[in-house]
Amino acid sequence: MAKRTVFFISDGTGITAETFGNAILAQFEIKAHRVRLPFVDTVDKAHQAIRQINHAGEMDGNRPIVFTTLVNMDILKVITDQCSGMLLDMFGTFVHPLENELGIKSNHRVGRFSDASKSAEYNSRIEAINFSLAHDDGQMNRDLEQSDVILVGVSRSGKTPTSLYLAMQYGLKASNYPLIPEDFDRRQLPPALVPHKSKLFGLTIQPERLSEIRQERRPNSRYAALENCRMEVSEAEAMMRRAGIRSLSTTTKSIEEIATTILQEIHPDRLAY
Amino acid sequence: MAKRTVFFISDGTGITAETFGNAILAQFEIKAHRVRLPFVDTVDKAHQAIRQINHAGEMDGNRPIVFTTLVNMDILKVITDQCSGMLLDMFGTFVHPLENELGIKSNHRVGRFSDASKSAEYNSRIEAINFSLAHDDGQMNRDLEQSDVILVGVSRSGKTPTSLYLAMQYGLKASNYPLIPEDFDRRQLPPALVPHKSKLFGLTIQPERLSEIRQERRPNSRYAALENCRMEVSEAEAMMRRAGIRSLSTTTKSIEEIATTILQEIHPDRLAY
Repeated sequence: MAKRTVFFISDGTGITAETFGNAILAQFEIKAHRVRLPFVDTVDKAHQAIRQINHAGEMDGNRPIVFTTLVNMDILKVITDQCSGMLLDMFGTFVHPLENELGIKSNHRVGRFSDASKSAEYNSRIEAINFSLAHDDGQMNRDLEQSDVILVGVSRSGKTPTSLYLAMQYGLKASNYPLIPEDFDRRQLPPALVPHKSKLFGLTIQPERLSEIRQERRPNSRYAALENCRMEVSEAEAMMRRAGIRSLSTTTKSIEEIATTILQEIHPDRLAY
Repeated sequence: MAKRTVFFISDGTGITAETFGNAILAQFEIKAHRVRLPFVDTVDKAHQAIRQINHAGEMDGNRPIVFTTLVNMDILKVITDQCSGMLLDMFGTFVHPLENELGIKSNHRVGRFSDASKSAEYNSRIEAINFSLAHDDGQMNRDLEQSDVILVGVSRSGKTPTSLYLAMQYGLKASNYPLIPEDFDRRQLPPALVPHKSKLFGLTIQPERLSEIRQERRPNSRYAALENCRMEVSEAEAMMRRAGIRSLSTTTKSIEEIATTILQEIHPDRLAY
């Protein structure tokens, strides 16, 4: 396989260029060397970037692939004119047709949060992250009222990373509520959850996978034993069914897939769309 | 302003379509109604999507804007043929030129993690999230050794959301280590940190902003008082300078900007690139 270097170049963090570029590259069976070039916000830095890109092309014997989300036209022009790589201009490609469609000019604003500290959206996202951290594993039940989403499920079914993702990506206040053996003995939804049924979402998991995950945490414990995992999962699933709680098996799903499914089912009020 | 509906349509979660589409839309001063259509993975669901898109166009009196990252060609064809919206095909636009450039066909794989549970990359990301949660606020010092990055700074300087973001986005094991008044009295870097200087990154913040943030947490406390915040920040900055720790002011920065800057400075060994 020929050697290729891929660059992600942006006047901001480059995270959009990188996320999107990697999604495109995942469509190809190639192993590329990746280089992140964030904060290229002066013509000088653009010249430095050019040197680095063109040098990589000479070393590889193949022109580099360059994903860019540059919005400053002067900087983009330096790259377009002097870069020996294959340029994939992710903003320009779509912004120009949209200018025509909308009949307005784009504002060439760098980054999602131009001044992060003053953005209400940004502050509510930080608040959501702090909320979700404070409400991990059923801490502070009295605040369930304020939650946008409450995840229920047995220990290690995926509640914690999912709630943090919901907070970080969507600014949602997500709480966790673990179902524990005492709940199964009572055979009833924990009373604290009953008033919040519309916000509940259940996470379940294959007992075999759960046992594997718990083994890493507490090897050879009753907690991790396959028999016990089978019992807990089966009791938890029965409880969710009886209470009419929507649920999803996380066994083969990524955090992103779980979070997207939850949003489709729960439609939190606070979410912009 | 004319009414516009924007759709994000994908055979996967649609998170790439949404992240990228919103970055493009941020270039325009418009208020659009946004609709997420994830998991459109059958021709049937494509027809449902078409009905929804075309209906929105009739209601608005303006054709909708449709960002798609569909990789299944049969489903994409239904949308292309029958959708009355303006279609922005984010994958097709770049995948076809790349097929020519690389001389190979794309694999039309949906999503970043085709089977999340089996992906080593995915598992190490979950492990990193759990690690960063367990090592928030200086818990378990003995594991600092295993950290990829250790963030230091006064309480509420932005360490926690930044470390979670580094774990979630880059799979890095990020620990936090708060600098507290006792450290300032000693006028020395906490001894636990000394062996790990190459992994340390300092976060600082304007005392006025810090006082505001702390007021929300503990109103009218000494902890939140502007005088105390001034003292802590000044002592923490002096300590970082003396110890030669790279640092950044988080006052007007987003989590993404802070995380990207840290990666540029620290170059963690474990990071793929």
